[in-house]
Amino acid sequence: MHLVTSTAYGVHSEVGRLRKVLVCAPGLAHRRLTPTNADDLLFDDVMWVENAQRDHADFVNKLRERDVDVVELHDLLAQTMAVPGARDWLLDRKIVANEVGIGLIDPTRAYLETLEPGRLARYLIGGLATTDLPEDYRSGHIALARESTGVREYLMPPLPNTLYTRDTTCWLYGGLTLNPLYWPARHDETLLMKAVYTFHPDYAGAPVWWGDPELDWGQATFEGGDIMPVGNGVVLMGMSERTSRQAITQVAAALFENGAAEHVVVAGMPKLRSAMHLDTVFTFADRDLVTLYPAIMEAVHTFSLRPSDQAPGVDVVDEGSAAFVDVVAKALGLPELRVVETGGDVYASERQQWDSGNNAVALEPGVVVTYDRNTQTNTLLRKAGIEVVTIVGAELGRGRGGGHCMTCPIVRDPVEF
Amino acid sequence: MHLVTSTAYGVHSEVGRLRKVLVCAPGLAHRRLTPTNADDLLFDDVMWVENAQRDHADFVNKLRERDVDVVELHDLLAQTMAVPGARDWLLDRKIVANEVGIGLIDPTRAYLETLEPGRLARYLIGGLATTDLPEDYRSGHIALARESTGVREYLMPPLPNTLYTRDTTCWLYGGLTLNPLYWPARHDETLLMKAVYTFHPDYAGAPVWWGDPELDWGQATFEGGDIMPVGNGVVLMGMSERTSRQAITQVAAALFENGAAEHVVVAGMPKLRSAMHLDTVFTFADRDLVTLYPAIMEAVHTFSLRPSDQAPGVDVVDEGSAAFVDVVAKALGLPELRVVETGGDVYASERQQWDSGNNAVALEPGVVVTYDRNTQTNTLLRKAGIEVVTIVGAELGRGRGGGHCMTCPIVRDPVEF
Amino acid sequence: MHLVTSTAYGVHSEVGRLRKVLVCAPGLAHRRLTPTNADDLLFDDVMWVENAQRDHADFVNKLRERDVDVVELHDLLAQTMAVPGARDWLLDRKIVANEVGIGLIDPTRAYLETLEPGRLARYLIGGLATTDLPEDYRSGHIALARESTGVREYLMPPLPNTLYTRDTTCWLYGGLTLNPLYWPARHDETLLMKAVYTFHPDYAGAPVWWGDPELDWGQATFEGGDIMPVGNGVVLMGMSERTSRQAITQVAAALFENGAAEHVVVAGMPKLRSAMHLDTVFTFADRDLVTLYPAIMEAVHTFSLRPSDQAPGVDVVDEGSAAFVDVVAKALGLPELRVVETGGDVYASERQQWDSGNNAVALEPGVVVTYDRNTQTNTLLRKAGIEVVTIVGAELGRGRGGGHCMTCPIVRDPVEF
Amino acid sequence: MHLVTSTAYGVHSEVGRLRKVLVCAPGLAHRRLTPTNADDLLFDDVMWVENAQRDHADFVNKLRERDVDVVELHDLLAQTMAVPGARDWLLDRKIVANEVGIGLIDPTRAYLETLEPGRLARYLIGGLATTDLPEDYRSGHIALARESTGVREYLMPPLPNTLYTRDTTCWLYGGLTLNPLYWPARHDETLLMKAVYTFHPDYAGAPVWWGDPELDWGQATFEGGDIMPVGNGVVLMGMSERTSRQAITQVAAALFENGAAEHVVVAGMPKLRSAMHLDTVFTFADRDLVTLYPAIMEAVHTFSLRPSDQAPGVDVVDEGSAAFVDVVAKALGLPELRVVETGGDVYASERQQWDSGNNAVALEPGVVVTYDRNTQTNTLLRKAGIEVVTIVGAELGRGRGGGHCMTCPIVRDPVEF
Repeated sequence: MHLVTSTAYGVHSEVGRLRKVLVCAPGLAHRRLTPTNADDLLFDDVMWVENAQRDHADFVNKLRERDVDVVELHDLLAQTMAVPGARDWLLDRKIVANEVGIGLIDPTRAYLETLEPGRLARYLIGGLATTDLPEDYRSGHIALARESTGVREYLMPPLPNTLYTRDTTCWLYGGLTLNPLYWPARHDETLLMKAVYTFHPDYAGAPVWWGDPELDWGQATFEGGDIMPVGNGVVLMGMSERTSRQAITQVAAALFENGAAEHVVVAGMPKLRSAMHLDTVFTFADRDLVTLYPAIMEAVHTFSLRPSDQAPGVDVVDEGSAAFVDVVAKALGLPELRVVETGGDVYASERQQWDSGNNAVALEPGVVVTYDRNTQTNTLLRKAGIEVVTIVGAELGRGRGGGHCMTCPIVRDPVEF
Repeated sequence: MHLVTSTAYGVHSEVGRLRKVLVCAPGLAHRRLTPTNADDLLFDDVMWVENAQRDHADFVNKLRERDVDVVELHDLLAQTMAVPGARDWLLDRKIVANEVGIGLIDPTRAYLETLEPGRLARYLIGGLATTDLPEDYRSGHIALARESTGVREYLMPPLPNTLYTRDTTCWLYGGLTLNPLYWPARHDETLLMKAVYTFHPDYAGAPVWWGDPELDWGQATFEGGDIMPVGNGVVLMGMSERTSRQAITQVAAALFENGAAEHVVVAGMPKLRSAMHLDTVFTFADRDLVTLYPAIMEAVHTFSLRPSDQAPGVDVVDEGSAAFVDVVAKALGLPELRVVETGGDVYASERQQWDSGNNAVALEPGVVVTYDRNTQTNTLLRKAGIEVVTIVGAELGRGRGGGHCMTCPIVRDPVEF
Repeated sequence: MHLVTSTAYGVHSEVGRLRKVLVCAPGLAHRRLTPTNADDLLFDDVMWVENAQRDHADFVNKLRERDVDVVELHDLLAQTMAVPGARDWLLDRKIVANEVGIGLIDPTRAYLETLEPGRLARYLIGGLATTDLPEDYRSGHIALARESTGVREYLMPPLPNTLYTRDTTCWLYGGLTLNPLYWPARHDETLLMKAVYTFHPDYAGAPVWWGDPELDWGQATFEGGDIMPVGNGVVLMGMSERTSRQAITQVAAALFENGAAEHVVVAGMPKLRSAMHLDTVFTFADRDLVTLYPAIMEAVHTFSLRPSDQAPGVDVVDEGSAAFVDVVAKALGLPELRVVETGGDVYASERQQWDSGNNAVALEPGVVVTYDRNTQTNTLLRKAGIEVVTIVGAELGRGRGGGHCMTCPIVRDPVEF
Repeated sequence: MHLVTSTAYGVHSEVGRLRKVLVCAPGLAHRRLTPTNADDLLFDDVMWVENAQRDHADFVNKLRERDVDVVELHDLLAQTMAVPGARDWLLDRKIVANEVGIGLIDPTRAYLETLEPGRLARYLIGGLATTDLPEDYRSGHIALARESTGVREYLMPPLPNTLYTRDTTCWLYGGLTLNPLYWPARHDETLLMKAVYTFHPDYAGAPVWWGDPELDWGQATFEGGDIMPVGNGVVLMGMSERTSRQAITQVAAALFENGAAEHVVVAGMPKLRSAMHLDTVFTFADRDLVTLYPAIMEAVHTFSLRPSDQAPGVDVVDEGSAAFVDVVAKALGLPELRVVETGGDVYASERQQWDSGNNAVALEPGVVVTYDRNTQTNTLLRKAGIEVVTIVGAELGRGRGGGHCMTCPIVRDPVEF
C-alpha cells in the first residue's frame, strides 16, 4: 500500500528524478481501431495491439528498473471502481440518454452493474459497442443502431488516446489541472481522471488548480503535451491548435493566485499537424539541455505571462523577436540552453520529428527514454552526454506520440539552476 | 405590433398554408468566409455577399406576396436585444473567459455595451473579430491573438449557417425544440434563439418540447433539416450524420408525453455528405406529392416510433423492407404518395440533388419555392401540377441548402388527408 | 472567309489592341460534371450549364462589340473536321486500343464516322460515354464497362477545361507553343489544337516554337496561364505546380534560338492551389499597370533567362531579393509599374483573388474584362483610370478561371514602352 | 554464373514450387520518404529504413532456405549497368531535357558517368536529388531548383515502390509483360526493367507478350498485383483502379495469339483504396485453397475472356451473378476452392486486410509467407493445413503491400489440377 498521501504529490521540473508516473497500456480501445475509423479516433494508422502491449510493458519495466513507481490507468480505474460510490458516480455521468439513448439506459447500466471492477475499467477505456451487450440486455431500441448494416455504434466510446496520459491531467508543482481536451473524441478521458481524483484513496483531495470535465469549456482547451513545469516557478505552455489562449491565461491566473508559479512562458506555435503539441518539437533532456526541431521552433513567437495586481491578475509581455530558448534560459536563470537538434539530413530529421524524435521523457537529469527508430537524434543526444534508454516505437508511435506523451508524472523532484 | 400571442404559433403540416416564417438574410458572417476558412464554417465555396442578399430579398418578397409574415433574424434579434435584461442575459453567456479570454472580457463587454441593438445583432450573427475591437478597448492581452501574423481570432464566432434557419429550432405542432446542432461551429445559433424565445414579447413563453443550448447534449444532436411535422399526428425524422438516435428517441418521448404527436417515422439515412439531411433528398410539394432523389432514398431503412405505457415511453418498430414513402403514406392515411424524382439524366439528377433540387418549401398545398437552376426537376414538378416559384440559387446555394433549409415555419396550417 | 494567312498571326503584348482571340463555350463537357467527378475534372463545383453558356455568350458579345474577331473552339474544330484527312488524322490518334479497348475500336470509329462535323466536334470536346454509343454500335466488349453498376466510362474523355483556352496553346510574338498540360485529364486538349494547326486552312503552317501533343514531355509541363508575352522582347513565365523549370528553359531556348524573344523573366511561385498560375495573381491592365494579389506575389522569387552563346543557349540569373514587379518594369524599360492590389479587407481580398479578381484580360491599353463579383478590385482599377467591362462570374468562375484564362489571343498588337 | 538461359524462365501457377524470384531491398528511395512527400510517393507513412532492410533481408533468407534463387533488383541493375551499351541506353532515356532541364543534362550525365555500376544502380532506384550533384557538376541552371527555399527537386525520381516488384513485370507462363503502371510516380520502374531484359545476359531475349515503357499507354494501365497465372491455361486479372479494361483485353489478346493462355478470368473490383489490387484481397495458398477478404470479394463482378476467331480475337462473357471463386474453380477443373477468410472479429479482419493479411505468396503448394502481425488469419491458414512462414511487417507493410506484392516470380513450376 502507498503510504504517501496525495499532498506529497507534485511535479517540480521536467528533468528532476521521476518518482511516480501514470501510464496507460494499449488494449481494447486499440483493438477497435480500423482503417476506416482511425482518423476519427486521431490515429494515423492501425496497430498490432499485442506488440504494442509488449513494447509498452518493456517501457514500464525500464521505468521500474530506474525505481520509478509506475501506475497503470486500467489498474487505477479498477481500484477506483471498487470504491463505494465511485461506480455510481461515473455511470450516472456516462450512461445517460444523450450518450446511449433513452431506451438503452437501463439495460446498459444493468449489464455494467454485473461486471467486476477490472472488466468495467476495460470497457470504460476500451469502449462498449452495442454488439458487446449480451442478449439479455438488448431492448427493442437496439434496432435503431442498425448493427446488421455494418454501422458501429458505441454505448461508451473507445478512448485509444488514453495511451497519451500526458495530455489529460497535468501536475504543475503541487497541484493539478483536469484538462478540457481539444477533440470531442477525447473528452471522456478527463471524466475518468476526475473519478480517480475524487474517489481513489491515494488521490482524492489533491489540489486542483483548474479544470472540471463536467463543465463546458468552449474555446478554453488545454492539453498536457503543451505544458511543462520546468522549475524555478516557471511553466512553459505551447499555444497551439489544441491549447488555446483562452485556457492558458486562465491557468496562468490560477497558478499565480495560488502562488504555484510566477512566470508562464508561452510558445506561440505555427498551426501544423506535425507541431500539434510543444513536446512534439521541444523537450528537456538535462537541466540545461533541450532537444528540438528547428524548422518549427524557429517559427515560434514567444510571450511571457506574469502576475499582476490588477484584474484579471495576468500581465502579457510580447517577447518580440527573442528566441524561445533564450527566453526560457533567462527564466530559469541559466546563461543559455544547450540544444540538440533533430538528427540526420533534411529527410531524416523531418522523419524523426514525425516519429517523436524530440519527444523525450527524462527519468533524472541527463537520462531520457526515446524511441529506438530515431537513431540519429539519439546519437546526437548521447554525444552531448545524455544517457538514452530506447523503447520500440514501431506500433506505439502510430498515434504520433513518444515517451513524453505516454507519461503523466505525478511525483518529480525539482532541479537546481 | 403583433397581436397574436405565442400560444397561437404552431406548424401542423409540411404543405398547409404558410402564415409566418423565420428567415435570416446573408450578411457580415458571409463576408467573413474565405477560401481558407469556408470548410471550417461548413460552406463549400465563398459567396458574392451582395448578390446573395439581393437573391434572399427576392425570396422574402415572393413569400410576402403570398401573404406570408416573414420574420428576419437580424431584426428579431435586434428587437430582443432592446428588451431590458436580454442583452445582459446573452452577453453573460457569450462574453466569458472560455470564449474571449480572461483579459478581454471587460473591454469586449464594454465595447458591446456601447452598441445600439441593431449593430449588436449584426455582430452576434456576423461574429466579432479581435480586429473589430476599437483601439480604446484593446488590452495588453490582445497581443496573444497574434493579429499581425495573419491569425484570425474571434471574440464572438461568425455564424454563417444562420442562413439555414430550418435547422436551429423546429415548431412541431404547437410547441418547439431548441436544437443541439451537430457541428460545434453552429452551437451558438441555438443560444441566440433561446434569447428570442426567452425575452422577445411575441415569442416568450412558447412551449418548448425539448432542447436547451445551455446544456451539453453529447451525442444527442438534432437538426431541423431532418424533421418534418407532416400532420395527422406524424413527424418524420431523418436519422443522419447530424440527427442521432439519441436525440430522436428523446424528442419522440417528449412529443408523446405532451400528446403532441402519436407516430414518429424514422428514415435511417446512409452516411453521405450529399445526404446530410432528410430534406436534401425528400420534401413535400403537395398533400400527397413528394419530390425525392431515388439513389439515396432507396438506401433508407425505416423505423416507426410509437407511444408506450412502459418506460421510456417509446416503442421501436423496424419496418424492415417497407419503402419509406409507403410507410409515410400509410401513416398519413393516404393510399399512396405521388413521387417526382430529381430530373434529367444521371449527370443532371446528381447535380440537381447537390444543388438542392429536392429541397422545396411549400407555401400552400401545391405551391413551392425552389432554386431556378434545377430546371429539369422544376419542370417535372410543374407537369405534376405543382406551381413552382423560383429564386436565384447561384450564391445562396453554395452552403448546400435551398428554400426548405432557409425557412423555419412558425405558423403553418394543417391539411386534410 | 478570313483572308489573313496564319503568318500574320501573333501576340506582341499583354495589353495592345486584341484583334483575334480563341474562346470555348461551355457545353456537353460541363453537363458531364457532377459532385462526384468534379474533382477529377479539376472543377471545384458543378455548373448550371445553360447560365454558364448565357454568360459566356455575353462575354463573346462584349469582345465583338470592341471589334475583336472571336473564334469559338467548337466551330473551329467542326471546320477542321470538315477538311479532308483531318477527321482520320484525329480519330486515328484518339480511337485506339489504349483509350477505348480493342473490342470497341471498330464500332466506336464506325459510329463517329456517321456524324457530321459539328456533332463530332461536340463529342470531341464533350466526351463520348459508353452509354452514348447507339445500340447498333455496341459490341460484346461493352459489358466490361459495367454501365449497370453506375460506373461511367468514356470512349473519348470530356474536356471541360477547354473553357480555359489560355492554357493549351500560347502565341508568343510571331509563333506558338502546343503545350503539354500538367494534368493527364487535360492532355487531349492539345491534340485537338494540333489538328486545328495542322489542317484548318486559316491556321495550318503557323510557326510552332515548341511542343507536340504526340510526344511524352515528362516533367516538362507548360500552361498558358503562366505565360505572358509582355512586349519589348520579354516573356514572363510563372514557374508553378503546372509550369516547370524543365519546360520553361526549353521554351526560352527555342524563343532565343528563333530570335522571338531576348529575355524571359521567371516568377518562382509558391506551390499553392490558390496560386496555380501566374495569371491568377498577376495580370496587366495597362501598359504600365498591373493588378496583383500581394500575399502571394510577395513570396515570388525572380530569375532572368537570357540568350547565351554556349549550350544550351540559356543563361540563368538569380534576381535575388529584387521584387518581381521591379524586374519586370526594368525589362520593359519602364521606371516602374503602377500596381492595383486586390481590393477590400483581408477577407474580401482573399475571396476576390479566389474568384479571379486579378485575372483581367485587356482588350486594349487601359480596357479590361473581369468578373462582376469582384466589385472592390474593379473599383480600384477604375479609380486608377482603367475601363473595366464586367461579365457574370457566378457559373463561369467555378473552375477557378476568369477572363484571362478563358481567352487565347491569336492576334494582339504591340505597345510602346 | 547462371547457366539457365532466359528461355527456361516462366511462371506456370500461383502455388507451384517457386524456383527463382525477383525482389528489391529497401534503400535510398525510402530514405527520401518524409511525412510531407509520402503521399506523392504512394506510401501511407514513413519507414525506419534500417529495420525495413533487416526485415527484408530476413524475408530473402527465408526464401533462400527453401532453395529459392532470389535475385535482388539493385544487384541485377548493377550487373546490367556493367554491360557495354546498357548505361548509355538507359541514361539516354532518363537524363533528358524533359526530366532534368536543358541546362543540367550535361553535368548530370557527366557525374553519373563517373559512378561505378553499383552506385549508379543505387541512384537509379533511390533517386538523384539536385542536392546530390557534387559542386563540380552544378551549372548556373541549378538555381532554378530553389534548393535554399526547401523545394526538393530530383534529376532522377526516387522509386520507392520498386519494393513491390510484383507490379512492374509479370511472367505469365513462358513470357512476360512490361507493365505500364497507373501512377506516373512509378513509370520509370518499368524502364529499369526494360534495361535488364534488353541487356542483362541472363534475361535478354525473353519473350515479351505485351508492354514497352518507351510508349505511351494512355488508359491501358496494368499492374502485376492484379495478375495471377494460376495454371491450366488460365490467368486471373483484377480490373481495378490500376488495371484497366483497355489493358486487360490487350494482354488477353496477346496471350491468346501466342497460345500462352486460353482463358482470362476478370475480377471486376469495386473502386476502393483498400482494394487497390486483386492480391490485396485474394491470393492462393494451395492448389485449391485461397485466402480472401469477403467484404470486398462479395462485390466483385466476374467476366471470362476467351480466344475468338474474329477480330479483335477476344470474346467477353459476363458471368452474371456467379461467384468469382466458383468461376475460378471451374476454370481450373476443380470441384470447388477451399476458402480461408480474413480472421478475427469485424475490427480485426478489416485491420488485417489493410495490413496485407490476404497477401500471401506461396513457395510451394501449401507453404506461404505472410506478415507476422496478421496472427488470426495466419492461424486460420494453419488450421487449414497450410505451413505459414512469417516475416516482420512493421516497416515493410507501410506502403500497403505484403509478401505477394514484394515478389516477382521468374520461375515457378506448374501444379496438377
